[in-house]
Amino acid sequence: MIRVAIIGAGGYTGVESIEILLRHPQAKVTYLTALPDECMHAADMFGQLRGRLDMMIEPLDLDKLAKVADVALCCLPHKVSMAFVPKLLGAGVKVIDFSADYRIKDVAVYEKYYEPHTDKENLAHAVYGLPELFRSQIRGAALVANPGCYPTGASLALAPLLRHGLIKTSGIIVSSVTGVSGGGKNPSANFHFPYMNENIYPYGVGVHRHMPEIEQAASAVAGKPVELLFQPHVGPFDRGILSSTYSDPVTAVTAEQVMKLYRDFYKDEPFVQVVSKPPAVKHVAKTNYCQIFPTVVKGKAVVFSVIDNLIKGASGQAIQNMNILFDLPETMGLE
Amino acid sequence: MIRVAIIGAGGYTGVESIEILLRHPQAKVTYLTALPDECMHAADMFGQLRGRLDMMIEPLDLDKLAKVADVALCCLPHKVSMAFVPKLLGAGVKVIDFSADYRIKDVAVYEKYYEPHTDKENLAHAVYGLPELFRSQIRGAALVANPGCYPTGASLALAPLLRHGLIKTSGIIVSSVTGVSGGGKNPSANFHFPYMNENIYPYGVGVHRHMPEIEQAASAVAGKPVELLFQPHVGPFDRGILSSTYSDPVTAVTAEQVMKLYRDFYKDEPFVQVVSKPPAVKHVAKTNYCQIFPTVVKGKAVVFSVIDNLIKGASGQAIQNMNILFDLPETMGLE
Amino acid sequence: MIRVAIIGAGGYTGVESIEILLRHPQAKVTYLTALPDECMHAADMFGQLRGRLDMMIEPLDLDKLAKVADVALCCLPHKVSMAFVPKLLGAGVKVIDFSADYRIKDVAVYEKYYEPHTDKENLAHAVYGLPELFRSQIRGAALVANPGCYPTGASLALAPLLRHGLIKTSGIIVSSVTGVSGGGKNPSANFHFPYMNENIYPYGVGVHRHMPEIEQAASAVAGKPVELLFQPHVGPFDRGILSSTYSDPVTAVTAEQVMKLYRDFYKDEPFVQVVSKPPAVKHVAKTNYCQIFPTVVKGKAVVFSVIDNLIKGASGQAIQNMNILFDLPETMGLE
Amino acid sequence: MIRVAIIGAGGYTGVESIEILLRHPQAKVTYLTALPDECMHAADMFGQLRGRLDMMIEPLDLDKLAKVADVALCCLPHKVSMAFVPKLLGAGVKVIDFSADYRIKDVAVYEKYYEPHTDKENLAHAVYGLPELFRSQIRGAALVANPGCYPTGASLALAPLLRHGLIKTSGIIVSSVTGVSGGGKNPSANFHFPYMNENIYPYGVGVHRHMPEIEQAASAVAGKPVELLFQPHVGPFDRGILSSTYSDPVTAVTAEQVMKLYRDFYKDEPFVQVVSKPPAVKHVAKTNYCQIFPTVVKGKAVVFSVIDNLIKGASGQAIQNMNILFDLPETMGLE
Repeated sequence: MIRVAIIGAGGYTGVESIEILLRHPQAKVTYLTALPDECMHAADMFGQLRGRLDMMIEPLDLDKLAKVADVALCCLPHKVSMAFVPKLLGAGVKVIDFSADYRIKDVAVYEKYYEPHTDKENLAHAVYGLPELFRSQIRGAALVANPGCYPTGASLALAPLLRHGLIKTSGIIVSSVTGVSGGGKNPSANFHFPYMNENIYPYGVGVHRHMPEIEQAASAVAGKPVELLFQPHVGPFDRGILSSTYSDPVTAVTAEQVMKLYRDFYKDEPFVQVVSKPPAVKHVAKTNYCQIFPTVVKGKAVVFSVIDNLIKGASGQAIQNMNILFDLPETMGLE
Repeated sequence: MIRVAIIGAGGYTGVESIEILLRHPQAKVTYLTALPDECMHAADMFGQLRGRLDMMIEPLDLDKLAKVADVALCCLPHKVSMAFVPKLLGAGVKVIDFSADYRIKDVAVYEKYYEPHTDKENLAHAVYGLPELFRSQIRGAALVANPGCYPTGASLALAPLLRHGLIKTSGIIVSSVTGVSGGGKNPSANFHFPYMNENIYPYGVGVHRHMPEIEQAASAVAGKPVELLFQPHVGPFDRGILSSTYSDPVTAVTAEQVMKLYRDFYKDEPFVQVVSKPPAVKHVAKTNYCQIFPTVVKGKAVVFSVIDNLIKGASGQAIQNMNILFDLPETMGLE
Repeated sequence: MIRVAIIGAGGYTGVESIEILLRHPQAKVTYLTALPDECMHAADMFGQLRGRLDMMIEPLDLDKLAKVADVALCCLPHKVSMAFVPKLLGAGVKVIDFSADYRIKDVAVYEKYYEPHTDKENLAHAVYGLPELFRSQIRGAALVANPGCYPTGASLALAPLLRHGLIKTSGIIVSSVTGVSGGGKNPSANFHFPYMNENIYPYGVGVHRHMPEIEQAASAVAGKPVELLFQPHVGPFDRGILSSTYSDPVTAVTAEQVMKLYRDFYKDEPFVQVVSKPPAVKHVAKTNYCQIFPTVVKGKAVVFSVIDNLIKGASGQAIQNMNILFDLPETMGLE
Repeated sequence: MIRVAIIGAGGYTGVESIEILLRHPQAKVTYLTALPDECMHAADMFGQLRGRLDMMIEPLDLDKLAKVADVALCCLPHKVSMAFVPKLLGAGVKVIDFSADYRIKDVAVYEKYYEPHTDKENLAHAVYGLPELFRSQIRGAALVANPGCYPTGASLALAPLLRHGLIKTSGIIVSSVTGVSGGGKNPSANFHFPYMNENIYPYGVGVHRHMPEIEQAASAVAGKPVELLFQPHVGPFDRGILSSTYSDPVTAVTAEQVMKLYRDFYKDEPFVQVVSKPPAVKHVAKTNYCQIFPTVVKGKAVVFSVIDNLIKGASGQAIQNMNILFDLPETMGLE
């Protein structure tokens, strides 16, 4: 039985991780930590846990954590994460980190989009935890950087085309819409119900931090630098990300060829479903699946993907990574 | 042309009042004030005003206000309101006040549900601005207390039965559901989209401040003390209040008798529509109408009403009161 | 391993039952049937099943069903159900029926609200499957009438007060709001998104078929006839029922007394949670829990309950009943 | 006073047109027609009209229409429209047609995306009613083809760049999200609340009929053939279209240059607002405004536009066209 600590248990990815682990036959939550004002009974923090998890959220005690946990899911925001992760690793605990701090390998890029990096040493050894594309690197890692929500859906949508060199590596458009849970649990004017309801809008125009992360994953898959334009939008629903990608084939391809390529590429992947008509986010809500529909329109490769941003885009993928780290069946607890 | 100042223009009832006044042929907004951090161009505060109102929101300057306005719509919260209203009245400006400060005539009741009252003098002269029930008192008033959103819908639903003494004046249930705009513009955990969406819940159990206000209006209509239980709930929509009321007839009545009573009672009211099937909040969204469906079920009088909480439940009713104060047709700007 | 057939697998309660059974360690779906135009791959009917259930929905073949299934979940509408159930029972298959056909014991009442009853023989032996109130009758039954969604939430909310004779057995108000999935899968004008969204409205005024069902359950619990007024409303969300109940204590009680009564009454029930503040439907969405908050307001007993209408109000409760029928832990597959 | 007939008054664009005309000081609705099963009191068809319009919807009587109306708003679907329009024109009534039948000038393109055209004669004389781009052609026309909802937002977003030859005329991406009212009033599985709520999905991949319409308008503005890829999606809200467009500048431009270009281009347009940050559909809901935010990201021109699909994308634009046809101020009734 794998013993799991959740650091930053007071946020949405924390509770999603708890819910998955409650159904996981080979893992159990042994420790929950959060900020002092979030230290309370887990069911007082999240009403949906009432009767299912009788555990207090406590202030972090590193010694205690090291004694009771084999792995920590670190659900902290960037910058905060890189202050804790070295200590966790030093205490011999494996870490799956939800922040951006260990995702971007190029420190200069990280520091351009985020801020000064304070743990370059561990950054060098971190692996990017998108199993479908980088599974072999994850096995045996001590520190997994769990991918961002948008990068998960976008990278899976583009990977087959890039791996096979079928599209140009510049001029790619990724136009995505996320549900509001992607914005986190803190109330704000933008996500206040009377503003967000009956609304949809673009944000982060030209500056969203997931743009370089998608480019990094795409470049790794392509084997050469990929340059793309990522534009996020937020819509009036709780969960899910729809990514619509548009790219230019190097030479003409048909919809049938592209469909076959995707079916072959993902044929052994338990969590990627190549579907034969446009996908809908509701079909993957509360699941770890990514549904992808690839086609060709007027000569362009047009590929849509949908995921649940909190599951495949965060907590589900983290458990998937945990299963890999501990040599469990990758789908355990996730179906 | 009536010149209107809006005090507290940064909230939802402020912008609703502006929108109505932009369509009003005999009134115009001449002055907008708000808290310092809300002082900006009106269209920067509310995107929907762009191109329609080129006016700054300014810090309150009482002298200026008195020069440019005949009437002030005071869209401030309780307690704040009673600090400003005496000054406005002193400057010779009529006031339509949106807060609860001048609604409850019994100071002891006010102070039980709210806090110490600091302007009892003006309270004594304020009139309760529910035109369909208290129109004659409104004409000629200097200070109108604009009713609360729930009390508007609930009082109109119950008034015909109470006026005619057809129901018992105790044991009445008013079970209401409001849209989220009723909670105002400040972000909070309860109204954060990912919490409020796909949700509905009761609140204010036994302690909601609109309970004594409904009782006061109901008692005035009945001519004797009315005691009722008011239970509010909030649901995942922007606008509207549905009130479902349940009461006990003194002697048996039929659905047809009750329907006839309501049609007669409201036959000259431009904003009350007695409808022949259960109403829906969407039918009155963005209007000043109240739709009411009265019937009898298993011997109980069951009456439903729907209003737009921001229009008939706030800004529309304020303009209706303004029209009465200035001898304009009551429906002007509201149809 | 219990083998389960689902009859009427093309509706919402069918797919919910499938989803639960996919997680059930001691039961498996062995047969899916539906109307001819719904006979297709399960994942084509419900996108969320893709990759999780590789099974066709087939036309009903009673002989086949009897060979492959120990129990049938009969997710058919009323009238249709009572045409099939006798055959299923005759083939030696246990039946958990989702329709109203076997819920109402008084044929005259059934026929007043529904239509002529064509299977009075089995009706006489059917048990009403609300385990928290009638568990002992369920064990060993061949035919379980799975309760309606509203009656489940309402009966659990009122039962402790009625069992202990604390409230009057007439004049009870049950005012409920359901999510739209309660209206089923067939498109209609009332549930068309642009009508239902941003809307809430009462329906079934005085005639809703769940009124006599709630009365029957309440009367059984009270040990004498209970007469109540049930009023349903529908709001703009997918899942959940909030029931707000108002009743008159026989003698004065305090909120604390009522709370203690409820905690005692349900202290051994795994799926009923007596909570200390008003509940929200989102807290029980996708779970088999019923959360109840009992209190006293102005002398009235006011009790709120929330359930997921498709889980505790339908498919979850059916699996709970199945677990009882087959001597499995009652919570299996449901936590 | 312009007398207006509405043909096909039973749909969403019909009632929107009625609502606008009720506020129009120089026009009045004189005749409403619809299919026989929609012939009822207007307020029975649309609850929000109760008390505001006391008029029956009648079967079409061409002689009567010609007597009581100066202009007909023809809110019929394609194919049906071209069967009626010749008769209306023959009766001397001006026509503003909401269908696609008179929008596509190239009959071969129309017939590829729609069906055989049966009124080529009037098609030849119809003008495309997008006032901001084709105002001079609208004046004096007898038949105005009111633009589609997506083409309105997309064309206004792209026009300044195309008119000035700043972007390449191929490879343009238009990725749009519409609210559900765009799908019309007929219930269907795709727009059933429990399916559409909490959902977003692409549709019409490669085949949407608005693609050639946008290309036609864009080509007219550019003065040469424009080839673009239009991808629509539908999201869980009532009203609004957000269009995100991505195109390649011919030579490098800055965000500031593009912003200035747009401000100049639309500086005299009352209904186009070039805004300085990303727009939100809620800001234009229930208005005739189009808000546009143009910028440059990684060398690409990125332009967002938002409209209300039923107002600027249909009924508002029709009234705007009507005002032009009858030499009224273009904004009358629309502000």
